Amino acid sequence: MCAQQGLVVFRPPAWLKDQAASYQPTLDIESQMEFVIDVAARNIAERTGGPFGAAVFEQDSGRLVSLGVNLVTTQKLSILHAEIVALSAAQRCVGAFDLGAPDLASHQLVTSTEPCAMCFGAIPWSGVRKVVTGASDSDAREIGFDEGPKVADWVGALESRGILVTTDVLRDRAREVLIAYRDSGGEIYNSRADRDTS
Amino acid sequence: MCAQQGLVVFRPPAWLKDQAASYQPTLDIESQMEFVIDVAARNIAERTGGPFGAAVFEQDSGRLVSLGVNLVTTQKLSILHAEIVALSAAQRCVGAFDLGAPDLASHQLVTSTEPCAMCFGAIPWSGVRKVVTGASDSDAREIGFDEGPKVADWVGALESRGILVTTDVLRDRAREVLIAYRDSGGEIYNSRADRDTS
Repeated sequence: MCAQQGLVVFRPPAWLKDQAASYQPTLDIESQMEFVIDVAARNIAERTGGPFGAAVFEQDSGRLVSLGVNLVTTQKLSILHAEIVALSAAQRCVGAFDLGAPDLASHQLVTSTEPCAMCFGAIPWSGVRKVVTGASDSDAREIGFDEGPKVADWVGALESRGILVTTDVLRDRAREVLIAYRDSGGEIYNSRADRDTS
Repeated sequence: MCAQQGLVVFRPPAWLKDQAASYQPTLDIESQMEFVIDVAARNIAERTGGPFGAAVFEQDSGRLVSLGVNLVTTQKLSILHAEIVALSAAQRCVGAFDLGAPDLASHQLVTSTEPCAMCFGAIPWSGVRKVVTGASDSDAREIGFDEGPKVADWVGALESRGILVTTDVLRDRAREVLIAYRDSGGEIYNSRADRDTS
């Protein structure tokens, strides 16, 4: 086993703190989504990762609990999608692995693009009670990202577990960020089509 | 946003290093699985998390690259399933987010229990070329764990991406560890049946 003995650290970029400080608490999901899309766009401008942003908010207060961006290429960990970064940071923040624990405020995840298969699977374990998405799976695939093998009715699968889902919030604006990333020559990682043995 | 500003660290328990040192390199998948099941059993005995272990090996040399155990309850992060811990540690070890990069040895993931929906979704992004599992989804559900909403033909979904899958390796022995965990009163977390609103 290698020298690190399994210690894993991931550190959001410094600019994320400033971005978080600019948030004006709101209960309006379009305003929350606009904030998250701006974070995704800044992640491109700062060259700190892929064109994806996510945040966890308290449902009743609109308070921002955590902010995440895609850090896969810069921090060299394939799990570091924006949703995983935001959910993990939120759990660190509240000190619990279950954001839906009875003694906590209810939490919602707002993500600039529909979750991939991994992030979809992570959502029930996280304890969030609501998920809000911007760009769609097909928008991500349009620029060459692979969303993975997800159950066809992913919305129904979450809702049957008591997790509300609202899709296509500011979708056009979220999609524009994806296209801007592609057009800027951003790395489309994990697109294994050229290497599949199947 | 809370004080930690999104910094996330996860640190495998100290005993994992000793366990890794006890590994005798082998190409035999039953021997690799036996090693991983022992790790899962020790995670119960040491009370460092749930009854699950996983490891990443180089396919051609049998070298152990990383070792993971479930750390959800002790490190308070819902993503810390054994597979995620092992895959992330392996990526740190090789210094790349893609364990299937052309300049690297091929890697395989050996896990004591079939991956849940999240870990299943994480596998294609990790770059491993083969997955070997012990206990099944139904064995995990038998003791009350929830495997999440996974595509029905998860093996086919991975194989269509060029990732080989071998299931049920030392399954009975792997299942015994799950049952021992339940019988010892181990926490069955993330079983939200009593709280679902559906």
